[in-house]
Amino acid sequence: MDWEKIVREISTKTASKIILLVLDGLGGLPIQGKTELEAAHTPNLDSLAAKSVCGLADPVFMGITPGSGPAHLSLFGYNPLKHLLGRGILEALGSGVEVAKNDLVARGNFATLRDNLIIDRRAGRIPTSANEKLCQRLNSSLKSVEGIEITLFPGKEHRFVVKFSGEGLSDALSDADSQKDNKPRVPAQALSKEAAKTAHIVNDFMDEVIDLLQDSPKANAVLLRGFSKHPSLPSMGELYKLKPAAIANYPMYKGLARLIGMDVLTAGQNLPELFATVEKNYKDYDFIYVHVKKTDSAGEDGNFKAKKEAIEESDTYIPRLLALKPEVLVVTSDHSTPSLLKSHSWHPNPFLLFSKTSQVDKVRRFTEKECSQGYLGRFQAIYAMSLMLAHAGKLKKFGA
Amino acid sequence: MDWEKIVREISTKTASKIILLVLDGLGGLPIQGKTELEAAHTPNLDSLAAKSVCGLADPVFMGITPGSGPAHLSLFGYNPLKHLLGRGILEALGSGVEVAKNDLVARGNFATLRDNLIIDRRAGRIPTSANEKLCQRLNSSLKSVEGIEITLFPGKEHRFVVKFSGEGLSDALSDADSQKDNKPRVPAQALSKEAAKTAHIVNDFMDEVIDLLQDSPKANAVLLRGFSKHPSLPSMGELYKLKPAAIANYPMYKGLARLIGMDVLTAGQNLPELFATVEKNYKDYDFIYVHVKKTDSAGEDGNFKAKKEAIEESDTYIPRLLALKPEVLVVTSDHSTPSLLKSHSWHPNPFLLFSKTSQVDKVRRFTEKECSQGYLGRFQAIYAMSLMLAHAGKLKKFGA
Repeated sequence: MDWEKIVREISTKTASKIILLVLDGLGGLPIQGKTELEAAHTPNLDSLAAKSVCGLADPVFMGITPGSGPAHLSLFGYNPLKHLLGRGILEALGSGVEVAKNDLVARGNFATLRDNLIIDRRAGRIPTSANEKLCQRLNSSLKSVEGIEITLFPGKEHRFVVKFSGEGLSDALSDADSQKDNKPRVPAQALSKEAAKTAHIVNDFMDEVIDLLQDSPKANAVLLRGFSKHPSLPSMGELYKLKPAAIANYPMYKGLARLIGMDVLTAGQNLPELFATVEKNYKDYDFIYVHVKKTDSAGEDGNFKAKKEAIEESDTYIPRLLALKPEVLVVTSDHSTPSLLKSHSWHPNPFLLFSKTSQVDKVRRFTEKECSQGYLGRFQAIYAMSLMLAHAGKLKKFGA
Repeated sequence: MDWEKIVREISTKTASKIILLVLDGLGGLPIQGKTELEAAHTPNLDSLAAKSVCGLADPVFMGITPGSGPAHLSLFGYNPLKHLLGRGILEALGSGVEVAKNDLVARGNFATLRDNLIIDRRAGRIPTSANEKLCQRLNSSLKSVEGIEITLFPGKEHRFVVKFSGEGLSDALSDADSQKDNKPRVPAQALSKEAAKTAHIVNDFMDEVIDLLQDSPKANAVLLRGFSKHPSLPSMGELYKLKPAAIANYPMYKGLARLIGMDVLTAGQNLPELFATVEKNYKDYDFIYVHVKKTDSAGEDGNFKAKKEAIEESDTYIPRLLALKPEVLVVTSDHSTPSLLKSHSWHPNPFLLFSKTSQVDKVRRFTEKECSQGYLGRFQAIYAMSLMLAHAGKLKKFGA
């Protein structure tokens, strides 16, 4: 037995509702003595913390800086060490590419090929607009090969996502990218017998691109890596008998939510639209995941003030969530993004769980420091889901 | 290596003694601002906590409400996710039925059969006295089948435990119970080749009951579920080189203790007898498990005052345990039973370990809130056993 098996076995359908508010990249490090949370004016979060049980959650385990994929999977109760997401699928999700069960996706670079060597793996970082034109041109010229449709989706500068759609594709392929300049092209190699046909299709595609882009001075070849198919994750419905909704502004989080069977709702582009979407759809779901991106973006930019303000703006919506009277409201993060580091970090997530059946600890402000004194102590984020389900009365007794 | 393998390897026999006092269902939730422990006057537990190392222990993991089986196994150092106890064996232990290595047990219901349908799975909840008479009658009429003896033990209302004793029995059987009224009878099905003979014996028994109870208006058939054999758990002697005694008033806890090789002592029916039994037998054992049931029963009844008083009564015995001068005294619980919820819950157990070699933290009262500030933090209850052994000087160094 493990966490997933037990929870699958003892979870039960009830009318109670759970709201999980993820303030992306929330945790921080002090600048001039205060973290972003400590510097922010957060009367609503603080008064909520005073009525909640708090702690610090490690997304994967202590010291591990997670990407958004494993960090979110963990919060949703999927062991991130067991359910690994390929780079290709995450890039696709982040680009808003819808990936069906049979599709194969990969991350791609436009590159410069000369005298049979890849002399620039990034094609001189061509402008995004040029990338968009190249993808459009290839999409209209490429023919379906052996029943497989190929589509490119432009990203920033030289980056794109490619999707192969059709039957019998495998992701057991090595990267078609030497990772170094001034090396010859590397074909994708089949890592299993079943992948032979896919390797052939992928390599034919890469050859065809060279034919089609002969007149392009810089971007005249492509490199592909991180081949991945749609991962077969059990849905939150199967695991927890939940009917979950995802309310997020950014494609990556919508895509992640879709992978585990959440209904992805149209949530606009900003916080007013995001929270209005929660209110509008609240009655139809029993698990509502709300994702705020601003806190993380500001942290990534190293903009302490903007992150503090994003926290303060988020704080103003807490009363509206409480007015919905969910049985459980959790406010936490997927990972920390200290402005000081301008990147994701391994620091734990401040975590607050409000419910009628939660023990109330002595935490009075929603900060890293105060949360470390909470009843939940320091714990692995995967337990967030069993805690939410338990407090919502959705878990039966284990054993007699 | 896992916990069990390491502890088995490094545990060593010494003269030191450990007392584990389990106040069943101890942890609570606040009513009018205070938990049962916070409301109780516990001068002895508080002064002990001030000299001890404290923490909060999760019986299984965060969010999981355990039954008494997994909750106790965990405290005794048996991973409750690995050592699963069948429903039948727990029901048998709870009913005081002694189960030998070869025995097969199951939970049973008397039921009403009419026109080949089970029209009432509970036989109208016949009185316990009627149940006792039916069991007596069947026990005297049933013949041994293929060398297998069959005995029924009455429970409350329509419930009983049946024990099949003899060679070659298997518990790989499906439930002989459709779980719904107005369905035809369901035979036990063999879930492995080896179980075929057992299925045959069980189904013959169920048919024979119908013949024998033809004149009974309501209880004229039986349903069986949770077939289980004596689990093969390593004994505490094998694992920890301990000579353990169990001192408990209730059958379930005695039965559980017997499963892992503890000597079960006659301990009377109340706290004075319970603690007198500890004193009388202390010299003969090096691990003494003392189980107080009252705290849990009061919690299950939703009786805050009775639970508070049970805690206060237990508190008065602490000086007598200390007078025995054990090297280690632990006071904790198997699981929480908040009066507010009238049931077992997922909240962690307040935990206190007193020993000359324990660090002393700042906890000054034995309450959930203060324990959350202890050195042990929030931990999984399975580590209680390695902590007790360590503080008693019974664990050698791991590795060089």
